[in-house]
Amino acid sequence: MKVVNHKIVLAARPSGLPVPSDFRTVEETLSLTGERQILIRHEVLGLAPAARLRMGAETDSYAAPMAIGETVYGQAVGRIVGSSHPGFQEGDWVMAMGGSWQRYSLSDGERVFKVDVDLAPPAVWLGLLGSSGLAAWTGLRQIGHPRPGETVVVSAATGAVGSSAAQLAKAWHCDVVGIAGGPRKCLHATEFLGLRACVDYRHPDFPESLAAACPNGVDVYFDNVGGKVRDAVWPQLNQNARVVVCGLISEYNTAGRREPSPPWFDVLVKQLTVRGFLLTDQHLSRRAEFVEEVGELYKKGCLRVQEDASRGLGRVPEAFIAMLRGGNLGKTVVYLDD
Amino acid sequence: MKVVNHKIVLAARPSGLPVPSDFRTVEETLSLTGERQILIRHEVLGLAPAARLRMGAETDSYAAPMAIGETVYGQAVGRIVGSSHPGFQEGDWVMAMGGSWQRYSLSDGERVFKVDVDLAPPAVWLGLLGSSGLAAWTGLRQIGHPRPGETVVVSAATGAVGSSAAQLAKAWHCDVVGIAGGPRKCLHATEFLGLRACVDYRHPDFPESLAAACPNGVDVYFDNVGGKVRDAVWPQLNQNARVVVCGLISEYNTAGRREPSPPWFDVLVKQLTVRGFLLTDQHLSRRAEFVEEVGELYKKGCLRVQEDASRGLGRVPEAFIAMLRGGNLGKTVVYLDD
Repeated sequence: MKVVNHKIVLAARPSGLPVPSDFRTVEETLSLTGERQILIRHEVLGLAPAARLRMGAETDSYAAPMAIGETVYGQAVGRIVGSSHPGFQEGDWVMAMGGSWQRYSLSDGERVFKVDVDLAPPAVWLGLLGSSGLAAWTGLRQIGHPRPGETVVVSAATGAVGSSAAQLAKAWHCDVVGIAGGPRKCLHATEFLGLRACVDYRHPDFPESLAAACPNGVDVYFDNVGGKVRDAVWPQLNQNARVVVCGLISEYNTAGRREPSPPWFDVLVKQLTVRGFLLTDQHLSRRAEFVEEVGELYKKGCLRVQEDASRGLGRVPEAFIAMLRGGNLGKTVVYLDD
Repeated sequence: MKVVNHKIVLAARPSGLPVPSDFRTVEETLSLTGERQILIRHEVLGLAPAARLRMGAETDSYAAPMAIGETVYGQAVGRIVGSSHPGFQEGDWVMAMGGSWQRYSLSDGERVFKVDVDLAPPAVWLGLLGSSGLAAWTGLRQIGHPRPGETVVVSAATGAVGSSAAQLAKAWHCDVVGIAGGPRKCLHATEFLGLRACVDYRHPDFPESLAAACPNGVDVYFDNVGGKVRDAVWPQLNQNARVVVCGLISEYNTAGRREPSPPWFDVLVKQLTVRGFLLTDQHLSRRAEFVEEVGELYKKGCLRVQEDASRGLGRVPEAFIAMLRGGNLGKTVVYLDD
């Protein structure tokens, strides 16, 4: 079994927002070379803002930065087209955590999970039932601990992680307020996702509108954004509030260098819990539990999915850049054509 | 039973570091007036920096600020001189959480605990076996979760809370590094408290010395200080480090208004846990467990106690101010004379 693979590699380290020339496509031949290997043909790629974190040279504290020439990290859903691994068979649908931005991937089966495309279509296994949903679920379960009736605020509420977190908190009987950019996204958050309110951070009255939308203060803040959005939530935090720092998309392009931090004194006097959280392999141990709980809610129709789809491997860089600019509604996915 | 009480009340809200004229002494008569009451004659008062937090008007998010004319909040150890309460008898030694800066206090028995002066002398029930030790123990147990072999850094390491936290972490087989102001305190931290190292934050090479003292990075930072001390620890934090924000003494006099916060981006990429912690009544539920564990370590000689003692109610304001300036070594206590 030999295939021609196309992959997108990092051509240059982005300075600020990435540009298309920071990436380039490389062709190679792939084949099974030993025992316990699988060859996966990707059908859909899932793009996530956190990939930007690994493109800079300055973020070595999180994970080794990508090398120039390395295939860009990302998740993929596809089918197995060749297997010498006893756990996988040709034709199996799988989600590959480390599939990366390419048409095919070779794997030893680690971080590759079979997915049930009868329960949910392939792309949902990249978003709500994939890494985005797992990040939302883990962040809420392990850090946010939202209790019924508490006010939960979610930034980037219409994004892949945000829409998962907001809907989960709602399913757990919390009072959920979203934050998103622009009237179209805010309408989507209330009408499609069913949040009680959504506040537009681009509006000049944003801090006041947010305060008005949270008359009982904020008990859990699930933050994907950082920067000024976080600064507006900060004064609304209640005593013993929990802040899940799941993303800082407003600061990724600068690695946080230009952003002032929120008033630290409140950490003490409000007895806040603030915890940074990146989905890492350690969280995969609870993936089965997550899929069972969230899959069940999805099947019941309690959770809705919006995807922001493009088509063709060549469109991946521009879809990624558009997502970093906040252009997406829901999970950003790219379907791969022949 | 009628007694003449002297109490120290807030005369004016301090601006910055308090001055003696922010306080004044008031005389009054106290007596048991009903059922289930006790009258306690204080023998020792314990002073804590956190009292400063309540003297400003701006800290209402933590607890109602003190009113002008209100007796200053603090702990006291003393003996019961009158009781109509079935749980207490005349002669009992007790620690009164809300005893305050006065010679006597009347109480309904809430937040009053009998203490064993054979196990430890009265003043120890204000420090290591009192609120300071309980804050250290709770902060480590509930937030820091130090594991054997991990590096634990404690600021204000020779203070009442800091010396308790540092010695507890050491007793739990952690590698403990203290931070203190000046060579005398640093020597005390290594020689008397037995810490592996102590770094002087007043020295111009402080950040470099701290980094050198923590070759494996920092897993738990127990912070009592904030400001520049915290800023020097911050870059040394390891992935998944825990920061217990138990005090911000460097910022109390300004309520944090002038201090920049540490780089927020690290919260995400290092997946830090940061949690503010003030000893409140909810923590008293585990006091018995704390006294059993820490009392046992004290009895075995594993934990040492240093007190910074003055004598006479009139000396309380100046002892408090000296403590806020960092002049104390160990728990600041004031013995009350007739």
